Amino acid sequence: MVNKIKVGILGATGAVGQNYTLLLESHPWFEVTYLAASANSAGKTYKEATKEKWFMDKDIPKRLEGFIVGDASKITDALGKCDFVFSSYEGSKEDIQKTEIAYATAGIPVISNNSAYRWTSDVPMIIPEINHEHIKIIDIQRKNRGFGKGFIITKPNCSIQSYMTPVYALMEKGYFPKSIIVSTEQASSGAGYPGVPSMDLIDNTIPYIVGEAEKTEREPLKIFGEFKNGKFQDYDKLKISATCTRVPVTNGHTAIVNLGFLDNKPSSLDEIIGIWNSFRSEPQRLKLPSAPVHPIIYRYEENRPQPRKDRDAEKGMAVSVGRLRKCDVLDIKFVGLSHNTIRGAAGGAILTAELLKVQGYL
Amino acid sequence: MVNKIKVGILGATGAVGQNYTLLLESHPWFEVTYLAASANSAGKTYKEATKEKWFMDKDIPKRLEGFIVGDASKITDALGKCDFVFSSYEGSKEDIQKTEIAYATAGIPVISNNSAYRWTSDVPMIIPEINHEHIKIIDIQRKNRGFGKGFIITKPNCSIQSYMTPVYALMEKGYFPKSIIVSTEQASSGAGYPGVPSMDLIDNTIPYIVGEAEKTEREPLKIFGEFKNGKFQDYDKLKISATCTRVPVTNGHTAIVNLGFLDNKPSSLDEIIGIWNSFRSEPQRLKLPSAPVHPIIYRYEENRPQPRKDRDAEKGMAVSVGRLRKCDVLDIKFVGLSHNTIRGAAGGAILTAELLKVQGYL
Amino acid sequence: MVNKIKVGILGATGAVGQNYTLLLESHPWFEVTYLAASANSAGKTYKEATKEKWFMDKDIPKRLEGFIVGDASKITDALGKCDFVFSSYEGSKEDIQKTEIAYATAGIPVISNNSAYRWTSDVPMIIPEINHEHIKIIDIQRKNRGFGKGFIITKPNCSIQSYMTPVYALMEKGYFPKSIIVSTEQASSGAGYPGVPSMDLIDNTIPYIVGEAEKTEREPLKIFGEFKNGKFQDYDKLKISATCTRVPVTNGHTAIVNLGFLDNKPSSLDEIIGIWNSFRSEPQRLKLPSAPVHPIIYRYEENRPQPRKDRDAEKGMAVSVGRLRKCDVLDIKFVGLSHNTIRGAAGGAILTAELLKVQGYL
Amino acid sequence: MVNKIKVGILGATGAVGQNYTLLLESHPWFEVTYLAASANSAGKTYKEATKEKWFMDKDIPKRLEGFIVGDASKITDALGKCDFVFSSYEGSKEDIQKTEIAYATAGIPVISNNSAYRWTSDVPMIIPEINHEHIKIIDIQRKNRGFGKGFIITKPNCSIQSYMTPVYALMEKGYFPKSIIVSTEQASSGAGYPGVPSMDLIDNTIPYIVGEAEKTEREPLKIFGEFKNGKFQDYDKLKISATCTRVPVTNGHTAIVNLGFLDNKPSSLDEIIGIWNSFRSEPQRLKLPSAPVHPIIYRYEENRPQPRKDRDAEKGMAVSVGRLRKCDVLDIKFVGLSHNTIRGAAGGAILTAELLKVQGYL
Repeated sequence: MVNKIKVGILGATGAVGQNYTLLLESHPWFEVTYLAASANSAGKTYKEATKEKWFMDKDIPKRLEGFIVGDASKITDALGKCDFVFSSYEGSKEDIQKTEIAYATAGIPVISNNSAYRWTSDVPMIIPEINHEHIKIIDIQRKNRGFGKGFIITKPNCSIQSYMTPVYALMEKGYFPKSIIVSTEQASSGAGYPGVPSMDLIDNTIPYIVGEAEKTEREPLKIFGEFKNGKFQDYDKLKISATCTRVPVTNGHTAIVNLGFLDNKPSSLDEIIGIWNSFRSEPQRLKLPSAPVHPIIYRYEENRPQPRKDRDAEKGMAVSVGRLRKCDVLDIKFVGLSHNTIRGAAGGAILTAELLKVQGYL
Repeated sequence: MVNKIKVGILGATGAVGQNYTLLLESHPWFEVTYLAASANSAGKTYKEATKEKWFMDKDIPKRLEGFIVGDASKITDALGKCDFVFSSYEGSKEDIQKTEIAYATAGIPVISNNSAYRWTSDVPMIIPEINHEHIKIIDIQRKNRGFGKGFIITKPNCSIQSYMTPVYALMEKGYFPKSIIVSTEQASSGAGYPGVPSMDLIDNTIPYIVGEAEKTEREPLKIFGEFKNGKFQDYDKLKISATCTRVPVTNGHTAIVNLGFLDNKPSSLDEIIGIWNSFRSEPQRLKLPSAPVHPIIYRYEENRPQPRKDRDAEKGMAVSVGRLRKCDVLDIKFVGLSHNTIRGAAGGAILTAELLKVQGYL
Repeated sequence: MVNKIKVGILGATGAVGQNYTLLLESHPWFEVTYLAASANSAGKTYKEATKEKWFMDKDIPKRLEGFIVGDASKITDALGKCDFVFSSYEGSKEDIQKTEIAYATAGIPVISNNSAYRWTSDVPMIIPEINHEHIKIIDIQRKNRGFGKGFIITKPNCSIQSYMTPVYALMEKGYFPKSIIVSTEQASSGAGYPGVPSMDLIDNTIPYIVGEAEKTEREPLKIFGEFKNGKFQDYDKLKISATCTRVPVTNGHTAIVNLGFLDNKPSSLDEIIGIWNSFRSEPQRLKLPSAPVHPIIYRYEENRPQPRKDRDAEKGMAVSVGRLRKCDVLDIKFVGLSHNTIRGAAGGAILTAELLKVQGYL
Repeated sequence: MVNKIKVGILGATGAVGQNYTLLLESHPWFEVTYLAASANSAGKTYKEATKEKWFMDKDIPKRLEGFIVGDASKITDALGKCDFVFSSYEGSKEDIQKTEIAYATAGIPVISNNSAYRWTSDVPMIIPEINHEHIKIIDIQRKNRGFGKGFIITKPNCSIQSYMTPVYALMEKGYFPKSIIVSTEQASSGAGYPGVPSMDLIDNTIPYIVGEAEKTEREPLKIFGEFKNGKFQDYDKLKISATCTRVPVTNGHTAIVNLGFLDNKPSSLDEIIGIWNSFRSEPQRLKLPSAPVHPIIYRYEENRPQPRKDRDAEKGMAVSVGRLRKCDVLDIKFVGLSHNTIRGAAGGAILTAELLKVQGYL
């Protein structure tokens, strides 16, 4: 591809922003051409601006070191420099909403990691393997808001991505969930940098993450929702109850899931494993560059999935599942795991962008 | 107390055995007078026998360093040396059963940490705050088996002790559980020493512990069982579904509990907290030396209980609870935590011994 | 003691300040009567002011929860409320100097954990077991600066306390060090709270701590200095070369020390161990309440001292030493360990205060 | 290359053996054709034999899963199946020597990770960038022992590989070391699997590793030795003093090095950095497949090298160096880091094999 699509990153100096720069380093379709952050960082080179807080294990991309960081709140800085932006801009909900809508208004599509717009009815929240059809909500959004080329799209919270695709794979076969009880063991990187103090995670775990249980209980209902006759409706047959904990792991969120079915139930655990292992969706059919060949990988070993061993499956884009057993209270239980900063954040958003590109939205 | 009761420890060189020696160092009623282990260790001094594997943070008690370790399988070695034994002897189920019954037959009561006899119907499995009345099963056991002074009594698995007392406190007020979904985050010390390899717990967790989910699902039913008209019956109205995981924590098992009530439900979360904070039981009424003044401590902070901060509450004998919330799938959810090697192992067994002493069984 | 000495804590909301409140909870001579911090915290109760950042494993002392925090920069707030202060006030060097001198001028002695005044010639820097005689520098300081009852005294950096006492014990016997090469493995708590991000210490170590190598190389020279004929002179015969690293440990700084003697050398490694084990100094002779009975404990096991097993020796006030061997490059090598927030910070300062009290300075 | 050289792995079920299978998975010259281990594993498939102890983060290579493991002690099993072997066979020194010499006698060259033959005078111990010329010792060995195609060659201990190449780079420019004081912070994987118990490395470090300090002090003298006029002589002008500690890190050994020069000294720290960054040796000149392009990478950041961030530099084959400063006791100090199971074990041995192949020994 001779002419790559020009990409901007809002919040480029933060943890997720840094990850974008690495994951896009040799992307076949996209090229980072603009980096923006808060006023504090604006005007500095990217290297300077991230000096004390570059926290990725890999070094800052050489090509971007000398980039002058723009002010994310000044949309005019971005004009002409990028065709769309990934937004991991931090701030109050109001700030983020104001900033992201300004880009969309100016004709620059926004793919956002933030939760600010996740619950706005004409803004889709996408996991490409699950609700790729929701992308059409963009058409309504553009009409509603008088946008031209611009729009806003969001990706959901990282905590739900370790079990949502396995649950969806069963739904696709007619096995709908009625109740889910989930407890998560979430990695330190989910809190960004500096994030969780080391004193809190040496010989310790924390049974609480601000706002995380609420997102975990609510976001799946929108993602499983239906877009029918131009209207969108949340999935209303499922109740989720979540407890989210932090454990001393760098990357990889684990979800311990207990699930009860609505009416139809799979005939056996083996049927479920078969459904998971053979699951393919739109990103696989379209062979999107970041799509995992196997979106769900069932691990037969009793002691898997484990964060260090399974988070990097399919370059961090697959969900690993294991320990499927009958649950005496609900119906089944299993353990899911995904890489929170790849599948659960920057990688998931890039896959979404690839889908948008193929569908002509970018 | 001038004349202390003489105590033997079977499996004295193992992890739990070591903990017994420390916890009994200055016990007002009990004095360690005999240490026994496998044939390999027999004949060595206790210091030699634990040389490469003393894994407690505190040093080996000076008084015991020079003790000659006996052979646990030779009951004659123990005769006259101890009035009863704590057994944390390791081996096959058959070995353990054979050994423990030999002591009981020889007139030496056995308080066992092992699971070998937990499911034998005339052997009680005791958490002193909950089923102290089950101690009377000993009378039946003695009769059944023709024991004189001897008997066998067990303590349950450490994984259930972080939430059983809170659940029982509610039962006592008429709020019976119908269903429990629990996932645990268990400490490394639960596996003894050498136990879990460090390579498995650096930047990692493991979603599996051999046999632990089964024990977690089954043991509470015996403990909540009823002893009526000389007969014992398991509690049969409760279903438990458990997933047990290992996390990089030295001590302190965390349990994330979702619970549904049978019929009667507490009127509010505050009522539950009140019940927990005011809960007192037999060990408290008897002021047993190892009894925690507050067996259940509710932590109001959103991010508690935490292993490093709460495991040592009441010298490791209290259960700390927090994060009580409504559960949309069942009724309530909360997080419980207890010290697995104190409340969950040696400390719990010592408290049981104190109860037995007061009741005239020792 | 009916009337306890009234103690204020400057920087009471910080990590070291919190530790002071715990260590002084039942002190026989001192009672905390005043808590002060920055303007941000002033006016709040101590509980409120530390709400999001109480990071000690033990709970905040009940008695202090409702104390209204004063503004450390307003000396008038402290007047009449305390007889002396421990200062762990954070800020720029200028701020700290200004604040501490204001207290001293107002007649309130200051025992400081800060480095701001450590290199001022008329301000002593004290490790009670080593240079208790330097306390007399206070007389000069008072004269120089026209102080009445007030004065400033400092304690040295935590990084040097794991090996300074063992080195001094040898000096006392005529074995003077000429060169020391030391590398430290320092605990997370040394950086306070929030301190080091967890992402930096999971599956990782950091070979750098700001300013720490410099302090480690320089401070011993003042502590080993001589106060003679009313004049003070640094020890100038010793060169120290240090590298300080951070490791994933909560508490306990380890120092790996290689040492060459000036001229006189001990006759054997056993002689050195004997000197260490029998070392006693002024705090021991005076039986100060916080003085460890054995200030230096030699561990004969090959794999000791270890942070988790040795940091709490003598309630965290002893230095544990081990692995004494010949060094082919210098003369000897050994490993030292002490509890950085007790012996190396609040505990060391409290012991100094006890010494000052006995000597009539408080 | 159509016909790859056939490779056997002795000790294939152990930690280092597992790493060989992964690193050789797509090697351009070598192909694993034979796996052998102890009698316990012999006869099982490789998958079965490693079932409970596969401890690599990446899965077992599919191609090798069904391989039947041979008995390493039966040389006849290997005949015809491999052209040479990598040996990480575990056992007593005598066992290892007996086994390895049997292969060499049978005409199968042995490249060994074991220390059994490291100090035998006609057996070279190779770091390819440093003493590639010592490979010629093989000629003498073959003559001495009447070997045909067979020979034994060793690689040194992992603990020395984090600083030996940087030291050698200076020697090559005429700056010879006279004294080195080194303390290491070594990763858990260095002890294999199960290796160090997790209870020893949570909130802890261990200041001792069996035999490691001795190897660290002695092996460099052979590696820096000279092979002249058909005779080999250890380097005798250098004294090394080492302390080796274990830290909670999965992979990556850190070495804190203080070094004094013999006579010639570099003119500045910058000169040293320049020498390191431009250092290239035989593996680079020959463009061996596993050779790092930059064998030494100087990190200018104050807080580098760090295990998690630097161990994978150049696919784990480079040594990262940082924190170069003057040492007041010796001359300079710095921190070196390398990946202990790649550069320090299997990777280093593969690079040696590549060198042997180019030189016609394989």
